[in-house]
Amino acid sequence: MTRLLFPVSLLLLVLGSAFVHYRERPDFVIKNTDSDSVAFAKLYGSALVEGEAHDNLRYLCKNLPPRLSGSPGAAAAVEYTYQLLQSLNVDSVWKQPCMVPRWERGAKEQARIVDSKSAGNERMRICALGGSVATPEGGLIADVIEIRDFSQLELLGKKHIQGKIVFYNYSFKDELYSCFDQYGDAVKYRWAGPSMAEKMGAVGVLVRSMTNAIDTFPHTGVMRQDSLAAKIPAAAICTKDANRLSQLLKQEGRVQFYMNMNCKKYPDAPSFNVIGEIKGSEFPEEVIVFGGHLDAWDNGEGAHDDGAGIMQAIEILRLFKATGIRPKRTIRAVMWMNEENGGRGADAYANEAFRKNEKHIVAIESDAGGFSPRGFGMDMANEKKQKIQSWQKLFYPWGVYEFTRGGGGADIAPLKKLMGTPQIGLHPDSQRYFDYHHTANDIFENVNKRELHLGAASMAALIFMIDKYGL
Amino acid sequence: MTRLLFPVSLLLLVLGSAFVHYRERPDFVIKNTDSDSVAFAKLYGSALVEGEAHDNLRYLCKNLPPRLSGSPGAAAAVEYTYQLLQSLNVDSVWKQPCMVPRWERGAKEQARIVDSKSAGNERMRICALGGSVATPEGGLIADVIEIRDFSQLELLGKKHIQGKIVFYNYSFKDELYSCFDQYGDAVKYRWAGPSMAEKMGAVGVLVRSMTNAIDTFPHTGVMRQDSLAAKIPAAAICTKDANRLSQLLKQEGRVQFYMNMNCKKYPDAPSFNVIGEIKGSEFPEEVIVFGGHLDAWDNGEGAHDDGAGIMQAIEILRLFKATGIRPKRTIRAVMWMNEENGGRGADAYANEAFRKNEKHIVAIESDAGGFSPRGFGMDMANEKKQKIQSWQKLFYPWGVYEFTRGGGGADIAPLKKLMGTPQIGLHPDSQRYFDYHHTANDIFENVNKRELHLGAASMAALIFMIDKYGL
Repeated sequence: MTRLLFPVSLLLLVLGSAFVHYRERPDFVIKNTDSDSVAFAKLYGSALVEGEAHDNLRYLCKNLPPRLSGSPGAAAAVEYTYQLLQSLNVDSVWKQPCMVPRWERGAKEQARIVDSKSAGNERMRICALGGSVATPEGGLIADVIEIRDFSQLELLGKKHIQGKIVFYNYSFKDELYSCFDQYGDAVKYRWAGPSMAEKMGAVGVLVRSMTNAIDTFPHTGVMRQDSLAAKIPAAAICTKDANRLSQLLKQEGRVQFYMNMNCKKYPDAPSFNVIGEIKGSEFPEEVIVFGGHLDAWDNGEGAHDDGAGIMQAIEILRLFKATGIRPKRTIRAVMWMNEENGGRGADAYANEAFRKNEKHIVAIESDAGGFSPRGFGMDMANEKKQKIQSWQKLFYPWGVYEFTRGGGGADIAPLKKLMGTPQIGLHPDSQRYFDYHHTANDIFENVNKRELHLGAASMAALIFMIDKYGL
Repeated sequence: MTRLLFPVSLLLLVLGSAFVHYRERPDFVIKNTDSDSVAFAKLYGSALVEGEAHDNLRYLCKNLPPRLSGSPGAAAAVEYTYQLLQSLNVDSVWKQPCMVPRWERGAKEQARIVDSKSAGNERMRICALGGSVATPEGGLIADVIEIRDFSQLELLGKKHIQGKIVFYNYSFKDELYSCFDQYGDAVKYRWAGPSMAEKMGAVGVLVRSMTNAIDTFPHTGVMRQDSLAAKIPAAAICTKDANRLSQLLKQEGRVQFYMNMNCKKYPDAPSFNVIGEIKGSEFPEEVIVFGGHLDAWDNGEGAHDDGAGIMQAIEILRLFKATGIRPKRTIRAVMWMNEENGGRGADAYANEAFRKNEKHIVAIESDAGGFSPRGFGMDMANEKKQKIQSWQKLFYPWGVYEFTRGGGGADIAPLKKLMGTPQIGLHPDSQRYFDYHHTANDIFENVNKRELHLGAASMAALIFMIDKYGL
């Protein structure tokens, strides 16, 4: 494109160093001189012009080791985010202890086709599912049986499954618009598949990676409790190799598969949530809590999942300080530990809040990637939803206008369970999330600075409104 | 994220091989069994499940040479897209001749700091602006003068500019939400800057690259007619080196700059627009035209700009054929030639349509990248806009719901000028466009398959509605 695509009239409000621009919209009359619009302009302006989340994320991803719960990297991430919060000069910064499960992947997984006329010793890309046991020492060799869905597994029964590696080859449904709906549809095979295969006498499990992309990255992830208790090794296989394996099974009838994994479970280890807050000036006992999770899978940098969310949470506190907006209620950023494989940090946080009878008026989570924000999902009473929806027009100039049902996330769910806390999830564009999720490709380079900062500003603006008008 | 973020009720319509899923929305009651919703589901479903635009784009980008107007690559792209259209078995496929300007970059540009105590012979990354003259043989060495904006240039006057290389260092305004607005604000320095500097006696021009990213890719692009006629060489400098050069000027007071460019203009050359259409079954004389531009800057693969747009246009015809939707009106895909540096294809197309008195009821352009579509910009009479806006709810389940003013693009503008044709532009998310635009980084790998196909389906759905209900 060479010329101006959108010839729109510019309306600039000079606000210190920040400008704001409203494009003309068909549905809303923007009252752009009211104090809420001005506050939005300050928050978005500061995030876009001088936001620090992207630089902080770079440091987390590039200078610290992987941060799976209980690892030295997780401890380093606790320390780093604690120091970041302290540097903001907010009212309180603390660490909240919790015990976390500890599991190590060990040496890189090996896998190959061992007995197929056409394939020879073809290498396959797998990664252990989180919490899996190791293969027997020296690896496991067995016939592969491809399973379309659970009903087929039941139908085949022990007779056909016994002694084999079960290969769940269930694809994402490309025709669904939201990639989270695709994930929600397919993830049961990773979640429940291992235990169901074990019951049928399988000796190992391969799960097609949870992605709509056809590529070479296996996607790890956690399993359901009964699968975690299973005694057979379970791995994800990248979609390219899943397709290849399926093709070979069709061609050859029988394929033997070698897999070698060295994972190990250790006793629970001490760790922390990291928390920073600005005390409310009028209603300090009313808490608006928001954040993401500090731990991340060990095979990548955890840039989108969920380095993005925690750096946005820290940025939100920075935005309130930088713009001089003093909240009436207490606003609290939490970096929850252990979302990926246990949720112990989330439980510890909610339990303490419940014990102390803290009043949480809302909990907001960012755990869907650092992509362009498009809206918020809400799980709360109808009149509260309607109140938030009435603010939609303020968000419209910033591209955030999908206010839907469904929201929250694993880190804030225990607050709902214990205290009925209203839940909100930031909804970024979902299309690219599963290109990266739980893989070696979830790296800093794949997070766009403006998209990340727009997400932080959107949450900050929503927190500003809830703080000002209550919920 | 481990668990389902958006626990939403699924409502699946089985439609041949396509499924559609509606998330519950706050604002709209989706009547999901009406025939329009069903058609939308078919179009989106086919694009997402069996869309071919991404594969076609890969071939264009990876197997054909760069395709600046008049180049062998442009001729190869004409041939390739012509054959793609023919393979679709549509009613007519043809090439529409036009003469295009021909300019070659020549050997890769060289530039360095030559006389700065601290910098020594530091290399600088530049690329010639499209249509620029070469430097004198062996290159040009001159003092650099940094210019903040045009008013400063005027203020300094000939006395300070004479004999120097003018360095326009005007940044994108980060605080603007739409990156196209940032571009629209800054591009005058590329557009008009060279001729204005020449008038002041400058011997060369450097323009800070048109991007919000700080990186090492210089961004080329076209100049205004008077700048094209200028006798001094003009180049873009990457933002990282622009910052470095500015810093050096502050430190050292004086910086000499070496630049060597070997560009050359040739006489106009013959070329073509490539066109394919499905004839309307009821009103064949009413044309709905849509497309993007076939030419692209020579320094990259032209993947987003505008390989995306032309492959979406071809995909739209495929979608109508694959879903068995027979349009009442004629739907016509055009790959316009020479958008980047002349617009000759656009003129040729509009002139012929005018001469033949063809009735174009709407023109739709995709030239803003293959990112997640968010809506459409419209430039037309109010009652037509309102008609289109009344269809918004059908698009809502597919994430496309920003129907704004402003739209169209350079390829369809002559149709408006000559015949008042209503203009529509596809609006994808703009945040990443200027990471790639007009650089060596505009490559296939940066285009996401689902995002590209959602854009094609959104245009197809809009064309379906305009065809069915008129405009």
